[in-house]
Amino acid sequence: MSTLKPTEHPEDNPRVKAVFDDIRQTRNSDFINHMWIYLAFDPDLLENTWREVKAVMATPSALDPLTKELIYIAVSVTNACAYCVHSHTAAAKAKGMTSAQHADLLRVIALAGKTNQLANAMQMPVDKVFNADAA
Amino acid sequence: MSTLKPTEHPEDNPRVKAVFDDIRQTRNSDFINHMWIYLAFDPDLLENTWREVKAVMATPSALDPLTKELIYIAVSVTNACAYCVHSHTAAAKAKGMTSAQHADLLRVIALAGKTNQLANAMQMPVDKVFNADAA
Amino acid sequence: MSTLKPTEHPEDNPRVKAVFDDIRQTRNSDFINHMWIYLAFDPDLLENTWREVKAVMATPSALDPLTKELIYIAVSVTNACAYCVHSHTAAAKAKGMTSAQHADLLRVIALAGKTNQLANAMQMPVDKVFNADAA
Amino acid sequence: MSTLKPTEHPEDNPRVKAVFDDIRQTRNSDFINHMWIYLAFDPDLLENTWREVKAVMATPSALDPLTKELIYIAVSVTNACAYCVHSHTAAAKAKGMTSAQHADLLRVIALAGKTNQLANAMQMPVDKVFNADAA
Amino acid sequence: MSTLKPTEHPEDNPRVKAVFDDIRQTRNSDFINHMWIYLAFDPDLLENTWREVKAVMATPSALDPLTKELIYIAVSVTNACAYCVHSHTAAAKAKGMTSAQHADLLRVIALAGKTNQLANAMQMPVDKVFNADAA
Amino acid sequence: MSTLKPTEHPEDNPRVKAVFDDIRQTRNSDFINHMWIYLAFDPDLLENTWREVKAVMATPSALDPLTKELIYIAVSVTNACAYCVHSHTAAAKAKGMTSAQHADLLRVIALAGKTNQLANAMQMPVDKVFNADAA
Repeated sequence: MSTLKPTEHPEDNPRVKAVFDDIRQTRNSDFINHMWIYLAFDPDLLENTWREVKAVMATPSALDPLTKELIYIAVSVTNACAYCVHSHTAAAKAKGMTSAQHADLLRVIALAGKTNQLANAMQMPVDKVFNADAA
Repeated sequence: MSTLKPTEHPEDNPRVKAVFDDIRQTRNSDFINHMWIYLAFDPDLLENTWREVKAVMATPSALDPLTKELIYIAVSVTNACAYCVHSHTAAAKAKGMTSAQHADLLRVIALAGKTNQLANAMQMPVDKVFNADAA
Repeated sequence: MSTLKPTEHPEDNPRVKAVFDDIRQTRNSDFINHMWIYLAFDPDLLENTWREVKAVMATPSALDPLTKELIYIAVSVTNACAYCVHSHTAAAKAKGMTSAQHADLLRVIALAGKTNQLANAMQMPVDKVFNADAA
Repeated sequence: MSTLKPTEHPEDNPRVKAVFDDIRQTRNSDFINHMWIYLAFDPDLLENTWREVKAVMATPSALDPLTKELIYIAVSVTNACAYCVHSHTAAAKAKGMTSAQHADLLRVIALAGKTNQLANAMQMPVDKVFNADAA
Repeated sequence: MSTLKPTEHPEDNPRVKAVFDDIRQTRNSDFINHMWIYLAFDPDLLENTWREVKAVMATPSALDPLTKELIYIAVSVTNACAYCVHSHTAAAKAKGMTSAQHADLLRVIALAGKTNQLANAMQMPVDKVFNADAA
Repeated sequence: MSTLKPTEHPEDNPRVKAVFDDIRQTRNSDFINHMWIYLAFDPDLLENTWREVKAVMATPSALDPLTKELIYIAVSVTNACAYCVHSHTAAAKAKGMTSAQHADLLRVIALAGKTNQLANAMQMPVDKVFNADAA
């Protein structure tokens, strides 16, 4: 089920084909997951989304690739995005996430979910020492 | 402003004092932030929350301490918990988060926020290869 | 699957029948979607929900009907309400949403999801010029 | 700070005055909180919002008034609505919420926040016995 | 579908078996729902989660068991946690929630969802009388 | 208060100056709001965020500029992003949003917040006619 009918033969469009080719090359895999197939209804949206995903997630940066996937999962779980939780948990495993790390991730996102509720319920003032403006 | 009046002289209660002492010793600092001062209105809630925070965040585990703070921030931002974003960004800095890592964290949580919206809007089916049950 | 067993023969209840008749007449269609069938377990809840949906979404007002559907989708996506995303995307298409408008909607809700994360992560002060009280 | 300039002398408008009078009478208090003062910029919005709040929260029903406030707080905390958390915590106290009940409320919303994260992260299937359709 | 492969024969692990036995005894039922079966991949996570669920939800406290389930549902609905909405609605029914109470619960969480949006859109200041610090 | 210390003299960095100049020119105003000043700590993040905001919000497209602001506000309210609600409500007013349109926006986002809660609570199946894949 979806809210968009996926384009038949999306790679007939050269802009779509170029993105799909880059996804395959970047990931060293022939598999194109549904996210990209459905985004192909609008080549501009497809290109811009992939460009950013590639720049942020598939380019060396200050955080290592697995850490970035763990952060991505944390946001996706909190936003209740089932698709993203599935795709990024699979990506984290592909990047070496162990079962112990998976359990640790769950412990942290569960604890954060819990204390976020406590802080939002108590509405206490932020401690002044946390203010970076004043540092 | 808060929804709870903080207890005056909370450490007159020995259960509260024991928790505060453990916080000071674990963090090697005299500073007790508002979260704990406001939770002190109910010693059971204070004890259980601190026990879990200590076990998850201040005990060596499969993920390193800074990675756990980054995940914590990711959840807190997504839940719009201002207090938790402040306290855990300060904690991440104290654990060595560089400015480049901070920027990278922002890039990942921003991208995840964006693609979560796209996936939730398109409601496309989860790819079968992502199903761990079938692995 | 659902958390409520839908009432068999809901239109045996005259209050339910009156609402269903009004839905059919307002929409000029015989189709009653699941939302209303499940709400029928409590005629008061059904009546009040439909009255508000009709007043806000099916009555001429300052915003045109398609714009109101786009706003509705934006909220539903952000709340991860799969049912509402499906039903209101279908409604927007029925009210003339083009594929280009759909892509534009996705671009805006994706960008907003992204910058919301950045602003909630940085927690910077709101600029004084944005304060309507002082205008 | 606000995004709307509150109307000066809102009760010069008879529709606004009628709502404010009903709020004062229903609550047996002269105090009108900001929610209603700011909503007064649009009398229709003010009337409809108050009518629903009065019908749901100030009219005897299957759940007692305090339980309804606790549920209201639970939603407001989860949505990070600072204003609503403040106003409904004050309302719950006015309706007799004890400090022990407040702590219990915090325990439940914190635990739910935690297990929601776990369930959304694991994405396991819903057990068939929970399906009301099949009951 | 899930992001974790459930452990085969989880009760071969004595820590898992002890938790499952306690669940069965506490609930006076042989049924173990998926939440616990999937959490069993990490006995520490399983033990700690169950210990807290038992302490908060299955131990007499200031709020009665049904009220606690209603609050749990309110959070789970707002977080769009389908699994938790299903499991806790079933639990609420098992603890005696009537159809009229269910409808009342829906009315309150719907109204709170609505006014949270209004307050977050207007961003008006919190009334000083709601500040517990000043009380 | 913020979690980041804003850079002093950010325009000493030519990449930052180029973005700020483009913001001023695009908006025909000398005012640079805090979002950009705080993002300037990382020129790459600043450049990429502004490029996308400009492309989506300040470039003619299938939806008109005011409609895009209304959608932006809808997401920001639902995500409880105070900064974004303020800045985009100001932007919508600058683009001609009338008081009647503002009230209508509030009516729609409030109603969507309400029915999202009802649908997520009832968890009823999505009607097959809403499935675009089958269309």
